[in-house]
Amino acid sequence: MTALSASALLASITKASRDEPDSGISAAVNHGIGRPGIIPLWSGEGNLPTPEAFCRPAIESLLKGETFYTWQRGIPPLREALARYHSRHYGRAFEAENFFVTGGGMQAIQTILQMIAGEGDEIVLPTPAWPNYAGPMRMMGAKPVEVALDFANGRWHLDLDKLFAAITPKSKAIVLNSPSNPVGWTASLEDLKAVRDECRKRGLWIVGDEVYSRFYYGDKGEPRAPSFLDICDTEERLLLANTFSKNWAMTGWRVGWLQAPKAVGPAIERIIQYNTSGTAAFLQQGCAVALDEGEDFIAAQVVKARANRDLVAAALRAHPQIRFELPRGAFYMFFALDGMTDSLATTYRIIDEAGVGLAPGGTFGPGGEGFLRMCFLRDPAKLGEAMDRFGKWLKTSKPI
Amino acid sequence: MTALSASALLASITKASRDEPDSGISAAVNHGIGRPGIIPLWSGEGNLPTPEAFCRPAIESLLKGETFYTWQRGIPPLREALARYHSRHYGRAFEAENFFVTGGGMQAIQTILQMIAGEGDEIVLPTPAWPNYAGPMRMMGAKPVEVALDFANGRWHLDLDKLFAAITPKSKAIVLNSPSNPVGWTASLEDLKAVRDECRKRGLWIVGDEVYSRFYYGDKGEPRAPSFLDICDTEERLLLANTFSKNWAMTGWRVGWLQAPKAVGPAIERIIQYNTSGTAAFLQQGCAVALDEGEDFIAAQVVKARANRDLVAAALRAHPQIRFELPRGAFYMFFALDGMTDSLATTYRIIDEAGVGLAPGGTFGPGGEGFLRMCFLRDPAKLGEAMDRFGKWLKTSKPI
Repeated sequence: MTALSASALLASITKASRDEPDSGISAAVNHGIGRPGIIPLWSGEGNLPTPEAFCRPAIESLLKGETFYTWQRGIPPLREALARYHSRHYGRAFEAENFFVTGGGMQAIQTILQMIAGEGDEIVLPTPAWPNYAGPMRMMGAKPVEVALDFANGRWHLDLDKLFAAITPKSKAIVLNSPSNPVGWTASLEDLKAVRDECRKRGLWIVGDEVYSRFYYGDKGEPRAPSFLDICDTEERLLLANTFSKNWAMTGWRVGWLQAPKAVGPAIERIIQYNTSGTAAFLQQGCAVALDEGEDFIAAQVVKARANRDLVAAALRAHPQIRFELPRGAFYMFFALDGMTDSLATTYRIIDEAGVGLAPGGTFGPGGEGFLRMCFLRDPAKLGEAMDRFGKWLKTSKPI
Repeated sequence: MTALSASALLASITKASRDEPDSGISAAVNHGIGRPGIIPLWSGEGNLPTPEAFCRPAIESLLKGETFYTWQRGIPPLREALARYHSRHYGRAFEAENFFVTGGGMQAIQTILQMIAGEGDEIVLPTPAWPNYAGPMRMMGAKPVEVALDFANGRWHLDLDKLFAAITPKSKAIVLNSPSNPVGWTASLEDLKAVRDECRKRGLWIVGDEVYSRFYYGDKGEPRAPSFLDICDTEERLLLANTFSKNWAMTGWRVGWLQAPKAVGPAIERIIQYNTSGTAAFLQQGCAVALDEGEDFIAAQVVKARANRDLVAAALRAHPQIRFELPRGAFYMFFALDGMTDSLATTYRIIDEAGVGLAPGGTFGPGGEGFLRMCFLRDPAKLGEAMDRFGKWLKTSKPI
């Protein structure tokens, strides 16, 4: 036979694609998916399916035969709806030409990275962070320069001096995710201004991930977190990745967007052309309606998330071996579990023994080991049951 | 203001993403799209929308709430349908584990390239070829080593000695697209065996694009073109990119697949995770039905394509300044126009003056300049009208 051994085949692919570790989130999902009775809190998605009101325009478009190749930058009605959405929420005019539709928030990030970084370049990012920043950087030969947030006295803190000290002549950008997945830390306007000023001074791109902006639990009922759009020009070195996944319960649609200066539009169009050749036009019709008519849905999601956050926090506070900061944004509880040094092994054990699916903190980079992440945008009753199971497990078991 | 100039912004992105030329197909589309009365034959798609029978399962799935994150490798029912489809058409058993669902054929190619090549690596490919091979290679820092097919005495010919002489120690793969877009050249089983044997000998990946396999106009009514699957092991260095776009009229869905040895499955899964994080599960439900129930549709498409090919060929033969080989596969007429040295400028002129949208041969790489590409999987009446308009234009105008 002419079959080759696994090792011969693996020796024939690039080192980066062979050696890149699996995301610990994927590892947890793959370990536990499909188990009877498992309560999955591992992924970053809510428990509600997409509202039918956002599905119907997609279905109509599909049945109308809008099934051909489409604009690589996204259909004009969606780009215009994005401009309207931003004008409403950021209190100034935005133009459709600054928005580019992508195959999910992940493709927005991938597109940004391909545009600004290559072999040997560096990108600075605070951690713990979603592993899907550092992973694709490494796979393209760029180096993620990870600067751990400090967790001290029950608070997460970004040391800006430490962050800026990580900049070198090879740096191309600072990536800032606020509100942060997984820690819930949310940049103040002052933090954002400091990052903006440093990027301007050093000629770096500001790469913002404000996907969780609407899931913000400020003291004054603010409808969103502070944003680079409050303090930046759209035509400076500013790139923002975003998605329909979280706000509108569309994780499975795989549609997102990217905001960029107009001048780099042709480069973005080429990268989209060579990555996926665009996003299904009929799906984009549903996304446009979500932007225009989704505010009540978002408001209800945020109310639920805040209540769930408090429910989970109350349950976790009963355990002296657990430490966390109440998140100001996003919808994750990221908590330290005393005595845990292998969060992935512990995650597997909690799946096996308690039937609760969490994500291991170690996968979120420096500062993440010793923690576990729990998504709380779920059904409150299920969440309560998960907390009961996990609480019992904590009383009888030891983390690894 | 803090806006930067276009040149300052462009100076801040990578050279590869700044300098990569636009695809000439995109340039033609962008030049002519939306013009009243234009007959578009520039893109590689038929004129029929997706049959409702393939849409309905997607709609049902969407309304059932299958709107969550899904398997990075594709949903099991679709991977099993892919195995069944291949078993039917290639006369032996295939396993679901060798198939990976992607966001279109383009993402299958991008995934392959990211897995096997990086900065400084080389990939050998015959041209004229779809520009979406060489483009993404250049953008990732790899070098496409293009070997022009010969067009002599009205026939396209691949000189295998010339192809193999282009292999160097930096080579990672030979990419072979058969039937070929744009020229319609189709590899014989002997050609495929020679490529296979050379790749085995030199330790290279065989990267096959057999997207147009079913659009094959053999002399004996064969249902498909010769394939690497006729002569290769699934567990050797064989990677095949494919798509639902052409056979099932689903260009706008952006769903494709990739066939690979099982051993590299985890690497493919990671690359998918970091590019798009998967393909909408509800769309995949429609694709599974297309595979299982789409044979009558494909058969009708191929009958139509063959008749259209002959219609277009008859019309073009009336013009002495035009030379072409009757394509054995795919659904493009790729013809030389005497006196043309700038196919893009001529394409613009034909759009402007004749209202017919073609694609410029120069964009398909070495050997392509001096030619124009016309997609003939269109409505025959429209195609006839396009040939009339183009014929009149040829009598009164000169190419550039």
